[in-house]
Order: sequence, then structure tokens, then C-alpha cells
Amino acid sequence: MFLTGTMKINDQGHLEIGGIDTLELVKDFGTPLWVIDEEGLRRNCRMLKEAFARWGDSVVAYASKSLCNMAICTIVAQEGLSLDVVSGGELFTALLAGFPAEKILFHGNNKDPEEIRMALQAGVGRIIVDNFHELELLNSIAEEYGHDVDIMLRITPGVEAHTHEYIQTGQIDSKFGFTLTDGQAMEGVKAAVNSPKLNLTGLHYHIGSQIFDMEPFRHTTALMMKFIAQIKEETGQEIYELDVGGGFGIFYTQGDRPGNPEDWAEAVMTTVQEKARYYGLTVPLVIIEPGRAISGPAGITLYTIGSFKEVTGIRKYIAVDGGMTDNIRTALYGAQYSALLANKADQQPVETVSIAGKCCESGDMLIWDIRLPQVESGDILAVFATGAYNYTMSSNYNRLPRPAMVLVNQGCADLILKRETYADLLRNDLLPDRLKNR
Amino acid sequence: MFLTGTMKINDQGHLEIGGIDTLELVKDFGTPLWVIDEEGLRRNCRMLKEAFARWGDSVVAYASKSLCNMAICTIVAQEGLSLDVVSGGELFTALLAGFPAEKILFHGNNKDPEEIRMALQAGVGRIIVDNFHELELLNSIAEEYGHDVDIMLRITPGVEAHTHEYIQTGQIDSKFGFTLTDGQAMEGVKAAVNSPKLNLTGLHYHIGSQIFDMEPFRHTTALMMKFIAQIKEETGQEIYELDVGGGFGIFYTQGDRPGNPEDWAEAVMTTVQEKARYYGLTVPLVIIEPGRAISGPAGITLYTIGSFKEVTGIRKYIAVDGGMTDNIRTALYGAQYSALLANKADQQPVETVSIAGKCCESGDMLIWDIRLPQVESGDILAVFATGAYNYTMSSNYNRLPRPAMVLVNQGCADLILKRETYADLLRNDLLPDRLKNR
Repeated sequence: MFLTGTMKINDQGHLEIGGIDTLELVKDFGTPLWVIDEEGLRRNCRMLKEAFARWGDSVVAYASKSLCNMAICTIVAQEGLSLDVVSGGELFTALLAGFPAEKILFHGNNKDPEEIRMALQAGVGRIIVDNFHELELLNSIAEEYGHDVDIMLRITPGVEAHTHEYIQTGQIDSKFGFTLTDGQAMEGVKAAVNSPKLNLTGLHYHIGSQIFDMEPFRHTTALMMKFIAQIKEETGQEIYELDVGGGFGIFYTQGDRPGNPEDWAEAVMTTVQEKARYYGLTVPLVIIEPGRAISGPAGITLYTIGSFKEVTGIRKYIAVDGGMTDNIRTALYGAQYSALLANKADQQPVETVSIAGKCCESGDMLIWDIRLPQVESGDILAVFATGAYNYTMSSNYNRLPRPAMVLVNQGCADLILKRETYADLLRNDLLPDRLKNR
Repeated sequence: MFLTGTMKINDQGHLEIGGIDTLELVKDFGTPLWVIDEEGLRRNCRMLKEAFARWGDSVVAYASKSLCNMAICTIVAQEGLSLDVVSGGELFTALLAGFPAEKILFHGNNKDPEEIRMALQAGVGRIIVDNFHELELLNSIAEEYGHDVDIMLRITPGVEAHTHEYIQTGQIDSKFGFTLTDGQAMEGVKAAVNSPKLNLTGLHYHIGSQIFDMEPFRHTTALMMKFIAQIKEETGQEIYELDVGGGFGIFYTQGDRPGNPEDWAEAVMTTVQEKARYYGLTVPLVIIEPGRAISGPAGITLYTIGSFKEVTGIRKYIAVDGGMTDNIRTALYGAQYSALLANKADQQPVETVSIAGKCCESGDMLIWDIRLPQVESGDILAVFATGAYNYTMSSNYNRLPRPAMVLVNQGCADLILKRETYADLLRNDLLPDRLKNR
């Protein structure tokens, strides 16, 4: 189940991706190495687009915070998707990659004036306003620019999806959005409607990440449609767009039971349509914002196994040449991953080991208790579903240079992110004269 | 208690550091901004050095993983300290800053052959060998170079210091070191003694981080002295150096009760001396490796307050222009921090707020429930004790550029780390031709 996209085990018993033996990739690009399966990525884009399109008008906006660089933005644009950005840095990258500005949605709970100016200058499609402070700030900056801005409001519906605490975002006690339950959301809508330079087109909400159960999507969408009806009744304002966020879970390990994109589409689209009928509303355009569901399964990480340590009767540690610097999700969320030995992909597991990183920190673990064939130093470990939130959250802790990233497709491997060098780490370091001369 | 080093509240009621009003720093360098109090940093170096020197021969090696760049390495060298590095990147930085190689100790659970070659080429003082795999690898590489290498062995004593799970490193189930309790440590010593190119000078252990209770230091040191006696008895090998690691806790919030450096020195040095007498051993040279205790309190982070969100009856969120990208410790360890409004440093607290970061993630929080004066957008928040493990663990999540760092001293402020630009974020991005031409 973790072999997705073009991944397979080839005749040599090696893991292959994008038509290339992973051992070839290691020889050419070194380790640790992030590998992105272009065909897998494109298939994920299309699968989601088609699943929702089947039910009616809909827009898929790729959440670039999951994996963002020039190449990924380009591919996503080529697949006809829209783009969700959350910062000036993501916007800058997308624009440089030639992403059509009008297809960009700009999120974030604390956009600064410079970011807002950048977004207005570029002409992004929608700014998703998070709070009253931003509403005022945006309106006043829009006045400088003299043109109206299409906005959506982020609403916090107060729904808890069953997932890890850190990635629940729909519950009431959240830093994000206008709270639905205490009347703040309606107040926000009225303030938006009364902002002379702002044009309220829609509402956005996001209930969490890595969600397997479709019921919270259905439930929240119904809540929001009810709210849209209330808005129309109280203010006369029509809401034409409903951005239901992301959160669609993917497969990491055997415990995960991801739904089908069709299930997600069915849950959201039928609820929207039924409730529109029920409340006598125009059916709003549905926008979804998958990140992980597109980039996650399309990426793997290749590591070289280095040292070993056996704690008698307790555990066997195997250390790789990366760690929490390139994948902090295990330490941060207790995330779990599947993996295999790329050079022994056809061999049966014979031992249970735990995969440690090379950082000088006990918490630097990648995988606890995984069954693998006999592991030896020099073996190549392939960790699956690392396309999302690995590169984007990576650090230089312990002054480790960040890995390279290659894009593979039909036997071609192209570097899309150069490996950092020691010199890169020092590029912004300055040594004041007074220290030199002391 | 969080105003350490040269920090004080000046006549304007503003926070001052290194003789400079923090509002001046903000004006000149922007936010988020890491500020390092040079005098505070130097005092911490001296305080630890003097505390241990009072009891006898001892070496203070600064743990650069807590905060490492050219300027910090230079200051630490000027203070006469040794340096603990854990990677090629840290070693590269130290060497470039002119740190004397013979005063560098090289740690790490999975040093790769390139890092080992780099260390041998540079002539680092000691390599701390973590496991059997490394012992073999190092010996074989030393053979290439034709000269002997002074090493210490990392021993896992099986002691649990009372601290956060992720930063306990002395317990038995650890990725680090030769386990003391199952005979592996003695086996490691024998293997080291029998390695033709390796010269075993000492033992190293590290029992955890942010430790307030001196008893675990005393207890572990006693255990290690007993082990040294056993080594002499079984192999005839004398151990001349005992590297007791770091872990000395600092003040973050009111709950923290840090000890005095004198207490740490007394606990370690008297135990070493008493046990040496008891077992009839030469008193080994004691090496300590404080990181956080030196860099932590010397650093503060300045943020600008942006947006607000009040969840009626539950919580008031205040968002700053940084977050888990520049300080992941709250999200990763549940770390707690003290803070004040730098521009209202003389005002009494009137409200309880929670400080959120600007990342698009619910877990991106800096401080939960802190009492502050009336907070307004544009206020400057100063977070204390961010000198350690903030910059070094920082990321570009959400494509946020990393902050600048200034070194302040007697009214001078020097940039020691340039603020990242959007262009920096894209420096290693490549767009393959086949994507352009598609």
C-alpha cells in the first residue's frame, strides 16, 4: 500500500521510482535524498480534480505549505490547479514559477502589511481574511491601491476532527478564524460587507489534517451551509464560494485507513447541494485545498544506513545519515512511517529495528520498531510518504546541510533542489571587526 | 529573574540589552530579531570556568549545537573554552572562525566517513566514539592517515535525569553510546584499547538536558568512577579524562529552579576526587560541556505583535511575526518561556494572553497563558532565554525567511547573521527544462 504512483520493486529486487532504480539515484545524487515521483504527483492532482468535478463546479487549490518550490508550483499549474499560499515566501515562489496570480488564494493568521501589499500588487485571486485586525488592515491597504479586493473569511466552525492535537484546527480554542459559535463569524461577515474596499465572495474553514472519517467533513459543511443561509437572511449577502480546506488523510502505516477521494467529494458536494436546495440558496462553488493528499505519497526519502547500536534485550538502533533535520514529524507529532531497504526490497523482514537520525538528540528518531530484512551498514533505507511536510519543515539543526531533491519521471531524474553545502550554512554569517581585532 | 546579563528596564520604560534600547534594535534591524548579549554570554563562560577551576583541573567545552555561528565560536575561543561539535557543519564553522582544532571535541552517534576524514585532517583534539561501528570505521580511516587518534568513548550509564522525555539521554534505551549495564561498555573499552590507531584517553557520558537536581550528576559520576576502576583492574588501562557532558538547567519560567554553577562543580568535582581516592586512581581531568547554560540566557527574541483573536470566555490569542520557524521548542517539547512587552516593560500586567506564531498550523504557539500589560498591534514582544536551540533548530516552514541575529555590547549592535531574503529561499531551487518546455 505504500508503493504508490510509479514505485515498484524491479527485477534486481531494488526499489524503483519514476522508471529509475533508487540505487542509481543514490549513486548520482547521494543521500539523504528526497525523491518526487512526478507521475504520482500529477495523478494525485487529477484524481482529486476529477473526483470533485464529477459532482459539479469545483476548484482544487494545492496547499503549497506541504511542499513548495519552483518545480512543484510549475507542475501544479500545468495540472490546472489553483494554489493556496500562506506567506510572502510561498507567494514569491509561486509567482516566480509563473503561477497565474488570479488562481492563488492567500491564507494566514497574521499576514503583515508587506505581505498584503505584495499580494495586492500581484493581484492574487482571493485573500482569506482570518480576523478583525486583518479586515481593517487589508481594507486600509486596499484604499492605498485604489481597487477592490476579493476576500473570503476564515470561519472556525468548532468541530473536532479525530486526529493529532497539533493539527486540529477547527475546534473553538484555535488561533485561526472567526468563531462561528459565539456570533463572531456573523459579526465578521457584517464587517466585511461594510468594508468599502473589500468584496466578500466566500467562506473558508479547515477542520484538521490527516482525517480518515468523512463524517466531520459532512457535518461541518452542513453547519457552514446553515450559516450561509443565516447570512443571506440577516444581511441579504449571498455567499458564492465555499472553501472547505484540506485535511484528507493519506496512508503512512498499516494503522491508517485513508478514504477514497470520491468519498471526500461525495461527502462535501452532496451536502453542499442538498443544503443549498433545503435553504433555497445558489449552490456555491466548492474549493478544496489538499496538500498532503497530493504531495505526501508522491515523495520518498532515501538514506544510507551508518552505525548500529544494540541495547541487549531492549532494542536495536540503526542510524541513518539524516533525521529530524529533514523529517521532524516523528519527533513533533509522533508520526509513523513505512520503509524498506531499497537494495533488499524483495527480501523478507527478519528483524525489528528502530531508525535513529544523526542529530545529537535522543528525540531524533524516524521510525520506532519496524520489521526489515537483515540491516547492514551501507544499505539504503527508503521511507515512504515523505513528500509532505518534510522538506518544508526542514532545519539545519546540528548544522546539517539540507538534502537535495530530485524529480523523477520515465527514467529521467532532474535535480529540483540542490543539496546544501557547508558554505551555504555560513552564507549569512558575519564576523564583526571588533571581534576579529580583540 | 529573566533579566540576566546586561538586560534592564531603562528610564523610558523600555527593555534594554547590551546598553541599547530594544526599540532602537527593532528600528535598525526589524523583527523577528535574535539578540545576543555579548557580555552576558562571556559572563556565563567565565562563571562556569571559574566554578570548576576552583576544585581542580577542568575544561569547559561549549556545546555549539545550542548556538553556533562564526561570531559565537570566536567569542567562546576568546574566553579560552574548548568546543563540542556534533557534525561536519559545526566543525567547518568552528575552523573557519579560527577555533583551535586541538580544543575541539567531536561527538555524534553516526559520523560519516567524510566527517571523520575532515576531523582527522583538521587535527581535532578528541573524537568521542559512540559505538562499535564507529570504532572500526575510525580505526580504518586513521590507518589511511597513518597517525594515532585520541578518542573518548561515550558511555550510556542508565541514569534517568528528571526532565522532558525527548532530552533524556542517559537512560538505557538510548540511541547513544556503549551501554554500561550489559557489559557493552567494558567490551567497547577493550575494543578501543586493541584498536591499533586509537588512543583511548577518556570516557564521556551525558545524562540529559535542563536538569535542576544535582543528585543525578553526583550519582552518575560515582558510577563512572567505579567503571574506571574496573577498567584499570580488568585491562590495566588508565582513564585520564572524564567528560561529564552538559545538561545544567537554566531559568525559563517561574517553575524553574536552576542550581548554581558552583553546585554543579561541587557535585561533579568532589565525587571525582573522593572516588579517585577511594579506588586509588589518578584524578582524571574533568571536562564539562554546557551549551544552553552559556548561550540560553544570553539571547532574547524580539517580535512585533500583529493580529489578535479573542475566543469569548476561553482565550485571547495574540499573533507575532515569527513562530515555530524561529522557536520550535514550545511545539516540540512543550517548552515554556517568559516574556514582556519591550515598549511597556515598566507597566503592570493586566491581561492573560496566549502568543501564537504566524505559521499556518494550530501547534504554532510560542507561549500559552502569559500575563502582559494591555497588548496592542505594533507592540514589541521580548521573549527571554531564546539563545539556545532557537536559531539552531530554525526552519523555513511556510517559506518564512529566518530572522537576523545581532550581537550587542556596550551600546554597539553588530549583525552576526543576516536576515534571510525570499531570494535566499530560492537559491537552491532548480526548474528543469523539460518542465519549462512542456
